[in-house]
Amino acid sequence: MTMPPPTPASAFSAADHAYMARALRLAEQGLWTTSPNPRVGCVLVRDGRVVGEGWHQRAGEPHAEVHALRAAGAQARGATAYVTLEPCSHHGRTPPCADALVAAGVVRVVAAMRDPNPLVAGRGLLRLQEAGIATAAGLLDAAARELNIGFVARMERGRPWVRVKLASSLDGRTALANGKSQWITGPEARRDGHRYRARACAVLTGIGTVKDDDPRLSVRDVATSRQPWKVVVDSRLEISPQAALFDGGPVLVACAVDLAARPEAVAALAAAGGEVLSLPNAAGKVDLAALLDELGRRGVNELHVESGFKLAGSFVREGLADELLLYQAPTLLGDTASGLLTLPELADLAGQRRLTVVDRRQVGVDTRILARFA
Amino acid sequence: MTMPPPTPASAFSAADHAYMARALRLAEQGLWTTSPNPRVGCVLVRDGRVVGEGWHQRAGEPHAEVHALRAAGAQARGATAYVTLEPCSHHGRTPPCADALVAAGVVRVVAAMRDPNPLVAGRGLLRLQEAGIATAAGLLDAAARELNIGFVARMERGRPWVRVKLASSLDGRTALANGKSQWITGPEARRDGHRYRARACAVLTGIGTVKDDDPRLSVRDVATSRQPWKVVVDSRLEISPQAALFDGGPVLVACAVDLAARPEAVAALAAAGGEVLSLPNAAGKVDLAALLDELGRRGVNELHVESGFKLAGSFVREGLADELLLYQAPTLLGDTASGLLTLPELADLAGQRRLTVVDRRQVGVDTRILARFA
Repeated sequence: MTMPPPTPASAFSAADHAYMARALRLAEQGLWTTSPNPRVGCVLVRDGRVVGEGWHQRAGEPHAEVHALRAAGAQARGATAYVTLEPCSHHGRTPPCADALVAAGVVRVVAAMRDPNPLVAGRGLLRLQEAGIATAAGLLDAAARELNIGFVARMERGRPWVRVKLASSLDGRTALANGKSQWITGPEARRDGHRYRARACAVLTGIGTVKDDDPRLSVRDVATSRQPWKVVVDSRLEISPQAALFDGGPVLVACAVDLAARPEAVAALAAAGGEVLSLPNAAGKVDLAALLDELGRRGVNELHVESGFKLAGSFVREGLADELLLYQAPTLLGDTASGLLTLPELADLAGQRRLTVVDRRQVGVDTRILARFA
Repeated sequence: MTMPPPTPASAFSAADHAYMARALRLAEQGLWTTSPNPRVGCVLVRDGRVVGEGWHQRAGEPHAEVHALRAAGAQARGATAYVTLEPCSHHGRTPPCADALVAAGVVRVVAAMRDPNPLVAGRGLLRLQEAGIATAAGLLDAAARELNIGFVARMERGRPWVRVKLASSLDGRTALANGKSQWITGPEARRDGHRYRARACAVLTGIGTVKDDDPRLSVRDVATSRQPWKVVVDSRLEISPQAALFDGGPVLVACAVDLAARPEAVAALAAAGGEVLSLPNAAGKVDLAALLDELGRRGVNELHVESGFKLAGSFVREGLADELLLYQAPTLLGDTASGLLTLPELADLAGQRRLTVVDRRQVGVDTRILARFA
């Protein structure tokens, strides 16, 4: 099997760009619901007119292409299909979309990006080509990858995209020395944070936060039909089955203890809806890399870490954090307050962890900064 | 004497707004040079045509109105004058501009704002009215006040506008625990910082920074015809006459020691171009409020504080800082690094120092935040 070469950007017309942009906007409608599947949109165009469009809504339900083909009916014959992700060529919970496009008589398929799984990338397009359909890929691919940043990460490396959410003052403080931390940022920032929870497949916190704040970790400030999983890092398995986060939805508790020695705790947590995993590292703590591997196996694309500064610092220190989602309030808490992240002392500035700010905007009176590690 | 009431906004036409905006842009050209005078621009308009314009360039040289009247010549007769600040009515180093406008036959004068000195505000306009000239004030006054924020502060309260410049990482750290702090921010941010030095009447630092970094404190990264004064807070009078900041321009050293007991140090500093003042507070440190009063008496409008986190913290703690100019680099230095400001520990979040972000922008890879205390 030979993979087709990438399509040069000059091969795409202004109309191609406009239709793919439309397909990306459709795909975005699945932002909170497609987990663990990718967000995908499809636009069918014949004779300069949109004859059908669709987007993937929920895992197990039809893919974007199928929605668009249904909408187009007989008008799909002779059409060009714009899809934000290469059509699948395998039988999953639904039949292959490549076959459906062939059967409908589509004559050209433009994909924003190939399947990010290196083992299957290009097979969908090849299947279309073998059926005599013209194919192209790479149109607005940066936007398409961004939309599925977690799915791409999981396909390419087996682990979720790890987004560490933090809220701090201008002087980088997250809580007073006495632990008080509520309401540093305003209501708009908190609602915005719930939007980020809503798009994640799972929300992770540490036992310290569970003990101090007893959070529910659910999406509440915005309306969503799907709640992300909850994951707690709890090395010594101290969490109570009465913790608020057991109120709805499955909970994964990652610990570092011998489960055989703690059958009652495991059973009590199971009764509350909690699954306990033991993933110890050499230091007797939870092996965070192994936890990410496990979450990847379970289909977690985007992992939203919302914890205290020690666990957040561990993710950064171990090179497991992909980006920081930082809400910065225009206030000063002073140098006795708790810092943003616990990180080892640096001997020189060459050791600093530099990031790239990919987005920065005002959210209420606060600033939201999205910054990625190199 | 009765002061005229403020002019309602509805009294100004679209053309009035446009000419005043032009006058403000002219005034901005004096941003780095007019100290200790305000930045002022003037536009003369007759029959819908600009017949003269000017801006104040340097103290002791003609005011904006005089430049504009000279440019207009005989065409000033019957014109409207747009000035960003109420024309002066007193004899300073130059004759009163109000008289010059009367003599030139101007028929209407629009001022963006009144003289901020409450003892003289309105007198210039009154003098014009008494000469039969129509006057109005308050057009784009927020922009006019902003342009002369330091002059306004000095006139209204006798003290300079205090801008505390800081450079930090995303986690609010200014230096490593071992003191290393150079090059946290990039070259664009440093050049931008020099633009802020250039507009200040004086740049202030502490003895700690002098000892650690031996800065020149001069404006170098941008071209300017005027260097701000230099001020050092040095409670124990430890500064060496060989310090780099004595290389050009006058230096004011504020200490808390008995000068009569240190005649040799005072003489050595005087020989290097340094004036020593003793302004002790009850704690044996420099009384910063008294220092600001003294700088106000000496005509300092904008004071640029560029010091370590202890002295910067003192300005904030004592309520003497008006705004923070914070350059934030997209990097993490970790919680063992030095904080942004030394502030007393807070018992609850009600004690936090909240600010209003008035400007935020990208400067190279860094972010510049201008935030004001309420």
